[in-house]
Amino acid sequence: MDLEFLKKLVVPAQTKMVMLIMDGLGGLPLEPGGKTELETACTPNLDALAAGSALGLSQPAGPGITVGSGPGHLAIFGYDPIEYEIGRGALEALGVDFELCPQDVAARGNFCTVDENGLLTDRRAGRLPTEESAKLVELLQTIKMDGAEFFVRPIKEHRFAFVIRARGLCDALSDTDPLKLGVADLPVRALKREAECAADYVNQFVSQVRQLLKCQSPANMILLRGFAKLPELPTYKDLFRLNAAAIAVNGMYRGVARLAGMTVLDVEGDTPADEFATLEKHWEEFDFFYLHIKKTDTCGENGDFTGKVRAIEEVDALIPRLLALDPDVVIVSGDHSSPALMKAHSWHPVPTLLCSKLVRPDGIAEFGERACARGSLGVLPAVHIMPIALANAGRIAKYGA
Amino acid sequence: MDLEFLKKLVVPAQTKMVMLIMDGLGGLPLEPGGKTELETACTPNLDALAAGSALGLSQPAGPGITVGSGPGHLAIFGYDPIEYEIGRGALEALGVDFELCPQDVAARGNFCTVDENGLLTDRRAGRLPTEESAKLVELLQTIKMDGAEFFVRPIKEHRFAFVIRARGLCDALSDTDPLKLGVADLPVRALKREAECAADYVNQFVSQVRQLLKCQSPANMILLRGFAKLPELPTYKDLFRLNAAAIAVNGMYRGVARLAGMTVLDVEGDTPADEFATLEKHWEEFDFFYLHIKKTDTCGENGDFTGKVRAIEEVDALIPRLLALDPDVVIVSGDHSSPALMKAHSWHPVPTLLCSKLVRPDGIAEFGERACARGSLGVLPAVHIMPIALANAGRIAKYGA
Repeated sequence: MDLEFLKKLVVPAQTKMVMLIMDGLGGLPLEPGGKTELETACTPNLDALAAGSALGLSQPAGPGITVGSGPGHLAIFGYDPIEYEIGRGALEALGVDFELCPQDVAARGNFCTVDENGLLTDRRAGRLPTEESAKLVELLQTIKMDGAEFFVRPIKEHRFAFVIRARGLCDALSDTDPLKLGVADLPVRALKREAECAADYVNQFVSQVRQLLKCQSPANMILLRGFAKLPELPTYKDLFRLNAAAIAVNGMYRGVARLAGMTVLDVEGDTPADEFATLEKHWEEFDFFYLHIKKTDTCGENGDFTGKVRAIEEVDALIPRLLALDPDVVIVSGDHSSPALMKAHSWHPVPTLLCSKLVRPDGIAEFGERACARGSLGVLPAVHIMPIALANAGRIAKYGA
Repeated sequence: MDLEFLKKLVVPAQTKMVMLIMDGLGGLPLEPGGKTELETACTPNLDALAAGSALGLSQPAGPGITVGSGPGHLAIFGYDPIEYEIGRGALEALGVDFELCPQDVAARGNFCTVDENGLLTDRRAGRLPTEESAKLVELLQTIKMDGAEFFVRPIKEHRFAFVIRARGLCDALSDTDPLKLGVADLPVRALKREAECAADYVNQFVSQVRQLLKCQSPANMILLRGFAKLPELPTYKDLFRLNAAAIAVNGMYRGVARLAGMTVLDVEGDTPADEFATLEKHWEEFDFFYLHIKKTDTCGENGDFTGKVRAIEEVDALIPRLLALDPDVVIVSGDHSSPALMKAHSWHPVPTLLCSKLVRPDGIAEFGERACARGSLGVLPAVHIMPIALANAGRIAKYGA
């Protein structure tokens, strides 16, 4: 889908759209002939919704490609995740709600342990407790340099987000993390000539950190990897004329939504019910809502089949509250599959449901992987979901006479 | 589909193909759980044909995109409707069977009413009767200018097609229609430097029209919009080595077929039966026939569900006459959907049937939206239909050894 072409056809409308994303929704049966997590879950509300919906299976980044949450979300938001790549560093900074600017270069940082010769003995400094890590982050935050600003933000345990802000930075930089023990950390190299200035800044920063942490233990050094700027995304406002809001508890999803220009709403609490309450509270203010459920993915990645089933059932029980708001278009899908069987993200296409007064219903009263495989949306690229949803919302004008 | 790639593989054959297009074929149920127009229609012949066919749902210009008849037809003819855009003016000229040349710039014209200060009081001159409009068109046709020829052709009521023919014209021109009342018509502006010459000609023409119509009432002025040249299409002869004929009653469809290099046949009468008689009459002369049925779309746009059902049934009853000719490949589809529920064109994918001795039949003995959703063609771009049809007609050679 060419976004420039689509943008020209977008018209405003008084309709409201909800995109409900259950992270890692797609699954697999535990044994031959069995059912997936979604098929196992008792989902009377989603099944009833499916009966009046068009169903399909969506692929975030093409056949066979397993995506992380960043590209998975870009795709379901309508952006080609291969064209708009979010680098690791940028994702980490977004994940801690850091307001990354377009000129910033971000990286993922680890506290680590080196011996008296500077050789790595532990790449994670014994998985340093989060509180200790936070203190060291404050120490790092004292580093100042002419011409550049540095930001360090704690993540969890030994992890932190690192950001350098200066004019004309390029993010084509090699990692300092050698990914093995018994060797020293690597100096940052510029992978393009225009990145030399950024490489200098980072190497000076790392050198100061080395002095600053010398007497600390076990975390006496840092590793940086995944240097990246933000991709420049056209916003939902510019592209789709949508006043969009994001309801998500975890930082990364809030960050990706912010990248698309969505207003990220505060959620009181962190349960799916709290998120639905946020939807109800702000219903009048926006015309597009992205609502993210994390637990389905967490259970999938933990191999917790039953937990994932329960997480889906918990969301199903909240569907009547969503429908009571009388949205014009409802999308229920995931950003990727996370089968408990695999304890990981997977490439399997994701069950997708699209409901509106103008949808052509498939008449399949079940929301599940095999039900969706029989649906009229077919196997579709995830980036196609938004154009179809916008059409159902009366937001795309006719092309040609 | 890359047409250059396809063209290299096309080989001649002694096979005959028929593409039967029911305009606006796809529909929607009137109420939840109901049937679409095509599902409601009693179509024993199409159902029997479906049983031995491959079925699918075609998308003219991508997911969520509603197309006009121009791009809808380009797509089903095999041309990317976004790459080959037909501007409004060119479509109107084609629509009245004007033989538009590649260098011509065409526009859609309206007769309108202005007050004594030249301000618009009615953009359609009270929907001037077609006969009166025709007389004024003759008056306009008297305007002569050195270096350029002007053609004016009546359409219906206040509408006419306007064409300017001269060397080196560019169609990057702004409209004279301000699209609102109480203001004067706008002078044409060149949107690119190379369009300045065309802008001058048009402004001189409009200025002469102003004098010519001064004493007329209510139509004392004109508005022009949608200036466009024809897109340059590779023809069916060049591209597919097909000697193709078009059977259509309405001008626009005849025009688009002419653009693809098809021979447009005269139809005695204007019913579907008359069109099928034309097919029988010319069967020996061509190896590809495009046969267009208008009524399905007209009923859809009028919100006449029952009329659309009857129109489909009328075509179904004629299918045995088509099959009696023993065509090698039959395609039955539409250029877009026009659900009576929406009284408009829509984005919903279009039921599509492809039958030949070499097709892999889905064994689904029903031609309808949900039956096609289960078909082996899946949800496919409309531009894919011609390559598959050509293959079934033995007209595509093997790629590589």
